[in-house]
Amino acid sequence: MVYITRRETFSAAHRLFNPIFSNEENEKNFGKCSNPNWHGHNYVLEVVIAGEPNPETGFVLNIADLKEIIEYNVLSQVDHKNLNTETDFMSGIIPSTENLTIAIWKVLVDKIPNGKLYAVKLSETENNFFEYRGE
Amino acid sequence: MVYITRRETFSAAHRLFNPIFSNEENEKNFGKCSNPNWHGHNYVLEVVIAGEPNPETGFVLNIADLKEIIEYNVLSQVDHKNLNTETDFMSGIIPSTENLTIAIWKVLVDKIPNGKLYAVKLSETENNFFEYRGE
Amino acid sequence: MVYITRRETFSAAHRLFNPIFSNEENEKNFGKCSNPNWHGHNYVLEVVIAGEPNPETGFVLNIADLKEIIEYNVLSQVDHKNLNTETDFMSGIIPSTENLTIAIWKVLVDKIPNGKLYAVKLSETENNFFEYRGE
Amino acid sequence: MVYITRRETFSAAHRLFNPIFSNEENEKNFGKCSNPNWHGHNYVLEVVIAGEPNPETGFVLNIADLKEIIEYNVLSQVDHKNLNTETDFMSGIIPSTENLTIAIWKVLVDKIPNGKLYAVKLSETENNFFEYRGE
Amino acid sequence: MVYITRRETFSAAHRLFNPIFSNEENEKNFGKCSNPNWHGHNYVLEVVIAGEPNPETGFVLNIADLKEIIEYNVLSQVDHKNLNTETDFMSGIIPSTENLTIAIWKVLVDKIPNGKLYAVKLSETENNFFEYRGE
Amino acid sequence: MVYITRRETFSAAHRLFNPIFSNEENEKNFGKCSNPNWHGHNYVLEVVIAGEPNPETGFVLNIADLKEIIEYNVLSQVDHKNLNTETDFMSGIIPSTENLTIAIWKVLVDKIPNGKLYAVKLSETENNFFEYRGE
Repeated sequence: MVYITRRETFSAAHRLFNPIFSNEENEKNFGKCSNPNWHGHNYVLEVVIAGEPNPETGFVLNIADLKEIIEYNVLSQVDHKNLNTETDFMSGIIPSTENLTIAIWKVLVDKIPNGKLYAVKLSETENNFFEYRGE
Repeated sequence: MVYITRRETFSAAHRLFNPIFSNEENEKNFGKCSNPNWHGHNYVLEVVIAGEPNPETGFVLNIADLKEIIEYNVLSQVDHKNLNTETDFMSGIIPSTENLTIAIWKVLVDKIPNGKLYAVKLSETENNFFEYRGE
Repeated sequence: MVYITRRETFSAAHRLFNPIFSNEENEKNFGKCSNPNWHGHNYVLEVVIAGEPNPETGFVLNIADLKEIIEYNVLSQVDHKNLNTETDFMSGIIPSTENLTIAIWKVLVDKIPNGKLYAVKLSETENNFFEYRGE
Repeated sequence: MVYITRRETFSAAHRLFNPIFSNEENEKNFGKCSNPNWHGHNYVLEVVIAGEPNPETGFVLNIADLKEIIEYNVLSQVDHKNLNTETDFMSGIIPSTENLTIAIWKVLVDKIPNGKLYAVKLSETENNFFEYRGE
Repeated sequence: MVYITRRETFSAAHRLFNPIFSNEENEKNFGKCSNPNWHGHNYVLEVVIAGEPNPETGFVLNIADLKEIIEYNVLSQVDHKNLNTETDFMSGIIPSTENLTIAIWKVLVDKIPNGKLYAVKLSETENNFFEYRGE
Repeated sequence: MVYITRRETFSAAHRLFNPIFSNEENEKNFGKCSNPNWHGHNYVLEVVIAGEPNPETGFVLNIADLKEIIEYNVLSQVDHKNLNTETDFMSGIIPSTENLTIAIWKVLVDKIPNGKLYAVKLSETENNFFEYRGE
C-alpha cells in the first residue's frame, strides 16, 4: 500500500462565529477571528489516498484525476468564496479549520475511484495545521 | 550599506472592485477576485531597510524595533481586517496588491529611525509577489 | 478525532557530549557536533494534539492557548539558551535532538487541557527531523 | 521509540511507459509524462527510521551514517541518471513515483544498522508526494 | 513603478554538452551533468514586470494574463520536454541554466502588453538560482 | 550579464556583546541575544556572482567551483563554530548578522575567478534577512 498526496491551495474569507453565542461570547471565544467584517486565508489542502499501485500503470490513482476530483468537489466551492455564506458543504457549520477539514473529508470520501481516502490535511497559516483521518 | 529585511505575515479579507465600473466591468476586470462576498489571503510582507551598521551595536536598526514599527503602523491596520472597509490607509483605494504595497510604503517611509526604507515586498499567494521601492 | 498542529521556532546553543566518554570518544561519536565552544541551531517545533472539536467553538483546543502553553513550558526554557547548561528539563541529558524531542513531550504531556498530546516533532536543520509519540 | 528522518534530493530523467501498451495507450495513460524524449524532476527523498536512542549517544542512529547509507545505496543509482535505463533497482519497473518509492524501500530495508526503516517518502513535484511503509 | 512577479514551475530533461568538445572535455567541464542518457529538474521560473498600476484597476498587468503569456510562450516549449532536442528557442544553445534564463528573457521581452520585462529568475535546484535583467 | 546564486547553510553559536559596554548596556542593546551562555542559528548564506556566460560552457562560473570556494573560505570558518571566539575573519567584530554579512563579502570578494561578487545574502532566522553588495 502506497500513500499518494495531492497538494492544492485556495483563498477564502471567513469569520468564526456561533449564532447561539452573544457578541461578547463570540469575541471571548474567537477574538479577532470573529471580526464581523471578515478576514481570510490562503489555505493549503493535502489529500492523501492509500492504495496499491495498478501493475499496468504504476499508479494508485492518476494524480491528474485526483486533482480534478478535488477541483470539482472542493475547490469550486471554496476558492475565492466566503466559507460562512457561500460554501454549501459548510452550511450551518462554524468554519473553524477543524470543521472545514472534516467537511472536506466527508465530501471526498466516496469520490475516490481507486484506493481510499486516508487523510485530509489543511493549513490555515504557516504555523497552524489540521488533519482528519475519518477516525 | 547593508540591506536588512524583516518578514511579517497577516491575514485579511478583500475584494477587487472599482465603484466607477458597472458590475459587468468589475467582473470582466477582476473575475473571481471581485466576489461581493469577499475572499482573503495570508499576505507575506517584507520590509527592507538600507543603512550603515552602528559601530557600537553592529545593527543598522534593531530588528526588534523594526518589528514593532511594522506591527504598530501596518499590522494593526490589516491583520484580521477587511482591507476595503477597515484599513484607514487603503480608504478610497482599490486593494490590488500593487496598491497595498505602495500604501504600506507610504505609511512606513517616514517612520524608520535609522537607515531608510529601501523596499516593501508583498506576496498575495505563493505564486504572486509585488515590490515597491518608492520609484 | 482531529489532529491540530502548532508550529513554533527557537534558537539555541548546544554541544553533543557525554561526560563518561573521553575526549577522543566524544569526538569519535559526535564529530564537529561536540565542539567544546558550542554551536547552535534554529529549531522548528511542531506540537500535535488529537481530540474532538468542541461543538460550540469548532476547536479541539484554542490554538492561541496551545501557543501560550508551548511558550510558557518549552520556549521560555530553550529560546536563546544553552541547552546543556540552562534548560532545566534537559539537565543531565545529552542534548541530541532525539532526547530533546522526548524531553519536550514529557514537559507537555500533562499540560494539554483538551484533547491529548499526539506527537512532538522537531527539526534541527532543514534535512534532519525527529518525532516522538510517547510510544 | 523515536522517528528520525533524513532528507536528501536528487535530479533524474524518466518517462512513464509500459512496453505492453501501444503508443496510444501509453499516451492515454501517461499523457505528457510519456514523452519519448524524456523529462525529469528534482526528487526530494525522506527516509524515516524508528528506534530507541542509544543511552550513550542519544542517537537512534548517527544521522551522518544514515546519510552515507542513502548516498551509497540510493543516490549513486539515481542522481543525474535516467531512471528507465540506468538505475539497476528500477530495471523492468515502470518509474512511477509510487514504484520508485517502493523500490527505494526494498533497497534500504535491510541496510539500517540500528532501529528499523519506518517509511520512505518521495516528492516528485512540490504538489505530488508519495509514501511507502512496507505495508 | 511597481515590480510584479509571477512564479511558475516546469519539469524538463537536459544534458550539458558542447558538440565542439571531445567526450573527455564534456566530462571535464560538465561532470555528471553531461550524462548522455539525460537527467532533469523541476525548474522554478519567476518573471518580473516593472510598471505603473493602471488607476482604474490597480494592476500593472493582470497577473492572470501574465500567467497565460508565460504558459503560451515558455511553458509550452519546456514543460515535460527535452531542452536539448525539443525546445525551439534553445536550438543550438548549451542548456546551462544561465543560457536558459537568457533565452526565456528573449522570448518574453516583446510579449509584455503593459509595463516592461524587468527580470527573469530561474532556479534549477533548491541551491542554485539564476537571474537575467537584459543587461 | 547573468546573476548566479549559490545557497549554502551553516550552524553556529554566537552572542551579541560589545566589550566597551557595561553588562546593563549589553542587555539593553542586545536583550536575549546577549546571553553569556551563547545561543545559535542555522544561517542560510547566498552568494551572488554577476558575469557573462562563457560561450564554450554556458557557465558564468562552474557552480561546483563556487561551492568549493564558499566551503573553503567561509564554511570551514563558521560551520559548527563559535562566531565570537573561533572565526578568524570575525575577530574583534560584534557578530551581528550585518557584520557577518560584510565580513563574508570581504573574504570572498577577491576569490571569484570569473565574473565578480555582486551580493552576499544571509538569513539568521526565517524572518530576518541581510544583504551586502559592497556599496
